[in-house]
Amino acid sequence: MMSVLDFLQRIDAGALTPERAVREAREAIRAGDDAIRAFVSVDAAAPVLREGPLRGIAIAVKDIIDTADLPTEFGSPIYSGWRPKADAPIVVAARRAGATVIGKTMTTPFAYLDPTVTRNPINRDHTPGGSSSGSAAAVAAGMVALAIGTETGGSVIRPASFCGVAAVKPSYRVLPTVGIKTFSWSLDTPGLFAATVADVAFALSALTGRSNVRVDGRYPLSPRIGIVTQDFAEAPEPASLDALDRAARAAERAGATVRRASLPPVLSDAFRIHGTVEAFEARQALSWEMDHHRNALPRLLRAALDAAAAIGVDAYDDARRTARRARRALGEVFAEHDVLLTLSASGPAPRGLASTGDSRFNRLWTLMGNPCVNVPGLDDPSGLPLGIQVIAAFGEDDKALSAAAFVEEAIYASR
Amino acid sequence: MMSVLDFLQRIDAGALTPERAVREAREAIRAGDDAIRAFVSVDAAAPVLREGPLRGIAIAVKDIIDTADLPTEFGSPIYSGWRPKADAPIVVAARRAGATVIGKTMTTPFAYLDPTVTRNPINRDHTPGGSSSGSAAAVAAGMVALAIGTETGGSVIRPASFCGVAAVKPSYRVLPTVGIKTFSWSLDTPGLFAATVADVAFALSALTGRSNVRVDGRYPLSPRIGIVTQDFAEAPEPASLDALDRAARAAERAGATVRRASLPPVLSDAFRIHGTVEAFEARQALSWEMDHHRNALPRLLRAALDAAAAIGVDAYDDARRTARRARRALGEVFAEHDVLLTLSASGPAPRGLASTGDSRFNRLWTLMGNPCVNVPGLDDPSGLPLGIQVIAAFGEDDKALSAAAFVEEAIYASR
Repeated sequence: MMSVLDFLQRIDAGALTPERAVREAREAIRAGDDAIRAFVSVDAAAPVLREGPLRGIAIAVKDIIDTADLPTEFGSPIYSGWRPKADAPIVVAARRAGATVIGKTMTTPFAYLDPTVTRNPINRDHTPGGSSSGSAAAVAAGMVALAIGTETGGSVIRPASFCGVAAVKPSYRVLPTVGIKTFSWSLDTPGLFAATVADVAFALSALTGRSNVRVDGRYPLSPRIGIVTQDFAEAPEPASLDALDRAARAAERAGATVRRASLPPVLSDAFRIHGTVEAFEARQALSWEMDHHRNALPRLLRAALDAAAAIGVDAYDDARRTARRARRALGEVFAEHDVLLTLSASGPAPRGLASTGDSRFNRLWTLMGNPCVNVPGLDDPSGLPLGIQVIAAFGEDDKALSAAAFVEEAIYASR
Repeated sequence: MMSVLDFLQRIDAGALTPERAVREAREAIRAGDDAIRAFVSVDAAAPVLREGPLRGIAIAVKDIIDTADLPTEFGSPIYSGWRPKADAPIVVAARRAGATVIGKTMTTPFAYLDPTVTRNPINRDHTPGGSSSGSAAAVAAGMVALAIGTETGGSVIRPASFCGVAAVKPSYRVLPTVGIKTFSWSLDTPGLFAATVADVAFALSALTGRSNVRVDGRYPLSPRIGIVTQDFAEAPEPASLDALDRAARAAERAGATVRRASLPPVLSDAFRIHGTVEAFEARQALSWEMDHHRNALPRLLRAALDAAAAIGVDAYDDARRTARRARRALGEVFAEHDVLLTLSASGPAPRGLASTGDSRFNRLWTLMGNPCVNVPGLDDPSGLPLGIQVIAAFGEDDKALSAAAFVEEAIYASR
């Protein structure tokens, strides 16, 4: 894989120019994307900048994010060839940081569950996950060093886990959602994919001006890690539990204090009402498409929007109250643990492209709005990646990333 | 003025058809808008629907809200002739409710403070207020019975007060902001303008499916009203304080329990940091316009965005924490009062069109996200309207509207 920090180090050392770095990405896309199909479009004219913390870094942008220079189609024929007037602010931030917006990546239609044609670069017979399918695959295939995705229930952390790359879903609204197609305004959260935790942390810092989120080897010496198995979700595959166990033991050997964390019961309630919040809001967010292009909506999305008609305002209001109570209760959990460590997905990437996999180990955390990091480095006996998820208190993105880097290092040392 | 409920009553009684009702609005616009300039565009082909709670109601939509059938220009030459692909969900909701989207109304550029050419229908030498200038004026001039606006710091309640119309700014996110040009995602809130409190309440119910917000004469018999003068803001004009006093005494005579409410000190802190949240987010939300069309941005907005460069992430995070603490503290105030009664603006509409007036009596409430209602009916000796603001606890839009209807009735009875 390409690494953001490796590129920047070589550029800083004069061993690589920004132009050459971007050309490497272009060549990798040209050579590799026919097999992976991570990209919807590539910008042949995207300027290479010589200034900024991300100079020379080619960045791929999920195609539900507005770009003025490239079509933005939301994965749907309804928006075939659609050209927004303006770039989304997250794209402007990438350009201001010096990055080269090299292309748009495959998204499931409107970032829901209907799959894309993108293949998992680790094993092309498997899904890369969704909905940020192309963003995760583009990084995993070594075509770009950095990609932007979004999640509403696990669309960043899950594909990162399936593709074996690092990803951060920052605290709710640390990265702006303006100019990004809305599915659920209470949930939609942009995130970043890159090779390593240090890479995503550096990129997050460059996009937001939050310099404290960078990790530069200054990990906590002995983070207090709480293990969470999310027993309110159906049981995961044994391989995932085994990976969590391996990560926990590696972290302990590296000096962490590892204990089992117990979540208050209201967190189970919150897990169950994620879908109520999501569907009630999606039915409004996509109401124009339903009224004007119903038959062009894909099967799973149309069924979900139809089913959402049964959700009344009282159920929605109740769900939001449950979420609020759960956020408060979760805050108290972090008095005893610096971070929580849990599964990133229920198992490795499913075989075939018919499903993008299951988000049940992600949903709660998107609803809570806490920063989550997917730590790569483990795999199952067949070589499919198994990610581990590090979660910190709301607003403590720095802690999530530094603890994730600690766990990543511990996993690496244990292999 | 045209009244939503009057129109519907006549339609129900067979005395008026939806076609005829919409034609009345068309004729009023044709006859009146040259003098007022509330409209940016009128849709000559907008269909009249025969079903739905708002059938026959011509609705005017602020021009920062996306419409597929009419240009959406955000009050700025940067977006001259811009056609979004889709209607904003709030526009879809209006159509689903049977309303006829008759045209787009003047907004200050990007809904900030630089004024429009719109005149106050009550006295054309005065501003109608902003940023929802055209929406408030279109209702006040009797051109439409219903209009949609938005506010980030007072752009619904203030122009309603200046123009002598009722308005509701519902609880944060009761009306969706999807497809509405973002200024500040933590603050932007759509709102409705109509002749009376019962009209805006009925329309809010029709747009959201929240039938409990309607007021049908079932007012509370003796609401507990807390009077708030917002002493953290600079002193208002005596005319406004006098109007608040008249409204309080009228409510008391009508059976309300009226006491002075005291706000915890953290509310003053929150008042002061509204601008920090707004400017930090606006600088991101409008970053594309700044990078690509800086010279086309109007004077006040450009200065505000430039000044916002000095706001760091720490100041922003601190401000958000203050807002969270203040929301919690404000919740407790409502244990003692059903609603708060305060000024809608610092005085009547200023003379001239150079300024849209001051939002200092609105900002705190937009930041808190509570439902606010402007109650019309009072004026100063020169005949300029002076609105009164009714505020309920977050999520209690029904209580805000029913108490506002009570106050409106009490004011009417006292004249």
